[in-house]
Amino acid sequence: MTNSKAASFPIGKLSIMLAVLQDHEWRKDVEDELTAKGFRFTIGRVGAMDIIKVVTAIETAAKNNKIIDSESYREIHAVYHAIIEAIQSIGRGVVQFGDILRTVGLTFSIVRGKMDGALEHSGEWIAVCVYGTIGAPKKGFEHEAIGFGFNHI
Amino acid sequence: MTNSKAASFPIGKLSIMLAVLQDHEWRKDVEDELTAKGFRFTIGRVGAMDIIKVVTAIETAAKNNKIIDSESYREIHAVYHAIIEAIQSIGRGVVQFGDILRTVGLTFSIVRGKMDGALEHSGEWIAVCVYGTIGAPKKGFEHEAIGFGFNHI
Amino acid sequence: MTNSKAASFPIGKLSIMLAVLQDHEWRKDVEDELTAKGFRFTIGRVGAMDIIKVVTAIETAAKNNKIIDSESYREIHAVYHAIIEAIQSIGRGVVQFGDILRTVGLTFSIVRGKMDGALEHSGEWIAVCVYGTIGAPKKGFEHEAIGFGFNHI
Amino acid sequence: MTNSKAASFPIGKLSIMLAVLQDHEWRKDVEDELTAKGFRFTIGRVGAMDIIKVVTAIETAAKNNKIIDSESYREIHAVYHAIIEAIQSIGRGVVQFGDILRTVGLTFSIVRGKMDGALEHSGEWIAVCVYGTIGAPKKGFEHEAIGFGFNHI
Amino acid sequence: MTNSKAASFPIGKLSIMLAVLQDHEWRKDVEDELTAKGFRFTIGRVGAMDIIKVVTAIETAAKNNKIIDSESYREIHAVYHAIIEAIQSIGRGVVQFGDILRTVGLTFSIVRGKMDGALEHSGEWIAVCVYGTIGAPKKGFEHEAIGFGFNHI
Amino acid sequence: MTNSKAASFPIGKLSIMLAVLQDHEWRKDVEDELTAKGFRFTIGRVGAMDIIKVVTAIETAAKNNKIIDSESYREIHAVYHAIIEAIQSIGRGVVQFGDILRTVGLTFSIVRGKMDGALEHSGEWIAVCVYGTIGAPKKGFEHEAIGFGFNHI
Ligand SMILES: [Mg+2]
Ligand SMILES: [Mg+2]
Ligand SMILES: [Mg+2]
Ligand SMILES: [Mg+2]
Ligand SMILES: [Mg+2]
Ligand SMILES: [Mg+2]
Repeated sequence: MTNSKAASFPIGKLSIMLAVLQDHEWRKDVEDELTAKGFRFTIGRVGAMDIIKVVTAIETAAKNNKIIDSESYREIHAVYHAIIEAIQSIGRGVVQFGDILRTVGLTFSIVRGKMDGALEHSGEWIAVCVYGTIGAPKKGFEHEAIGFGFNHI
Repeated sequence: MTNSKAASFPIGKLSIMLAVLQDHEWRKDVEDELTAKGFRFTIGRVGAMDIIKVVTAIETAAKNNKIIDSESYREIHAVYHAIIEAIQSIGRGVVQFGDILRTVGLTFSIVRGKMDGALEHSGEWIAVCVYGTIGAPKKGFEHEAIGFGFNHI
Repeated sequence: MTNSKAASFPIGKLSIMLAVLQDHEWRKDVEDELTAKGFRFTIGRVGAMDIIKVVTAIETAAKNNKIIDSESYREIHAVYHAIIEAIQSIGRGVVQFGDILRTVGLTFSIVRGKMDGALEHSGEWIAVCVYGTIGAPKKGFEHEAIGFGFNHI
Repeated sequence: MTNSKAASFPIGKLSIMLAVLQDHEWRKDVEDELTAKGFRFTIGRVGAMDIIKVVTAIETAAKNNKIIDSESYREIHAVYHAIIEAIQSIGRGVVQFGDILRTVGLTFSIVRGKMDGALEHSGEWIAVCVYGTIGAPKKGFEHEAIGFGFNHI
Repeated sequence: MTNSKAASFPIGKLSIMLAVLQDHEWRKDVEDELTAKGFRFTIGRVGAMDIIKVVTAIETAAKNNKIIDSESYREIHAVYHAIIEAIQSIGRGVVQFGDILRTVGLTFSIVRGKMDGALEHSGEWIAVCVYGTIGAPKKGFEHEAIGFGFNHI
Repeated sequence: MTNSKAASFPIGKLSIMLAVLQDHEWRKDVEDELTAKGFRFTIGRVGAMDIIKVVTAIETAAKNNKIIDSESYREIHAVYHAIIEAIQSIGRGVVQFGDILRTVGLTFSIVRGKMDGALEHSGEWIAVCVYGTIGAPKKGFEHEAIGFGFNHI
């Protein structure tokens, strides 16, 4: 059974698969597992030279898709730091895109739910994954990159 | 046909899948595609508090598995910078593990081959992906993370 | 009345005062306000060239003084990131002490409680403040510095 | 006597108290000690998403209030690096505000004078402290932070 | 013989001399050695508060002067990372100019050729050196700085 | 006349030439200019995987050669920050050598004196330049790099 294949994917891996698989048929298995586990999740896309647009796109998607409560600063603080971690992760040492003449074309995923593992009662966590291309603002003059942030929520 | 499913995975995504899928049955499809494309690749594991052990483990795996020519400084320079990018990527703003009391348990993949896409003749590239857990040196007090580096070789 | 003087100090400012005031008589007012508000707090000292000792000292103080539940990874994750922020804050661009030949002599405070302000229901937060000297490992060849980290818990 | 209470505050601590106390009655004691010691000091406020506005506001206040000689590059160099340290300190790992969708509302203090301590003849130093809120550009969706820079002048 | 004096300069040193010597008579010796070795090289100038202008100026000079093949993403990737390294190098901890109120007036050099040394067959490398002033946007309120990046190409 | 050739070299450029030229005959002209201008200067070498050894070597050379007054914290603070800037500059984004499996073999120069230029009365400054190789701890598997720090003293 397809669903069982992905049964052991923890929350972070699910967010990675979601961002990476895009239209691949495996994505259905990933989404099935997310649903079966009761996780909240969403996928979006953003292309930008300005980091602020990437932060805004992900934060807005988290709010609009009810991954977080947009009235709760606590939840916004949690997702914000996960987003910044994901941007630091994809930036690899420089937290800048357009300022250093690189543009990004990203698919992002946000997943909220419990962590698997040895510990019970650890509450909910939020994973943000960004996958796509980073490079010069010219078609084909770019390469792949992935970033990931994680936080308790 | 299973193989066709993964047919569109570019080099970076293949390295991500390789590091993330571990014993999942999908990994065979990924390896089949890597083989079909003539890519050189390897997978390894490393757990450490010292970054130097992570760098050494990945660089040694690249040499021992003939992903790179261990006599060529040029190739070692290429993989070295891809490794450092991957470590910056998983570190999310701090290029330190044990120094700030965190340990990592990582599966890493190295993939070498041509980039897909609009451009011909762009030669070979190398992708390094690290996936696993990062956190306190205590079982279960850690969370997932992923890092990725990429370079021309 | 002395106590009323400090009545408007929010959680972060209380942690700053706690770390900075040391034996000054104003500290009693700060502690009175902390107690009146039902905040959990502690103060400690650490001198080190290794960041790991600073992280360990603060994290251990948080556990031993019941500021956080030492069995909860969620709470440890929250205080850990607040500690790292405080170290980045005092490091001012370099997250290293002994590696670059500087030593620190720090008083640290940890405060946990509700945030004041416009928002209700935002739950508990944790503030970590480190204050002291940073400089050469030679008496008097050092200057003051302060660092601060903050997180939802 | 109130003044004696603060008698042992060194230059950095005075700058921290000045930035943090705002309208609290303790501030008078701090200002009295600053005056008694012959220190030059000033306080200002700046709210911004652009770091350049924060740098400019502090540097301009230092010049306009004669904390530094605005015709001396040497003095401007000293205060500039203290300002950048303070911004790195409040930024905690990322030297950006608006670019990553965060805004700051800061009170800053600048203090210039001699360092206390074991060493004589160490000349004058300058402390820059920034205290306030950092967070989303939405009332209440922000938390406290402090930053501190220090330099010989 | 003048030319022999510089005979032992490796590629990086040649790029440094080229950026630093400007109109000094020694520059001719450096250029003679570059020519004798068959290295491709160019010199340019850029003054800016925006990093993107510096990156663009150097990358464009590399293309226009045929140091790299502007149709090859591989070569652009190589020079891009060398440029970013040079900017990190001159920035000394902060990869920002105008954002933190500093401007740069730079002479840059780009040199492409073989590395000298113990190893044969290591192919071609590219060195980017930037030298000039960094400081406040006011004549004379600035000081010298140098940055250097290096990559295989 | 040879001496006149270098007559226009400002302090930073003199430190760069001193670190880079080594046994080249031009070095004499550089030293002549340094002497003519009344600058204090020294040259040293250090090979290390630990940053602390590099910092110590440069700081010790500054003290032993009377470039700075080893009893003055003020002067040590000035040279210390110039050294850290030089290390950040040569590190290009990562302030680590051995921790990320790279070693350095450096020639360093320290120059103290007045700045040339439009401004009078700007007092003394200190330049620290490091030039050499950085790379794997294996002969020939390394490339050139340069770093530079500057401060008022
Ligand atoms: Mg974490
Ligand atoms: Mg790249
Ligand atoms: Mg925060
Ligand atoms: Mg200092
Ligand atoms: Mg390199
Ligand atoms: Mg400077």
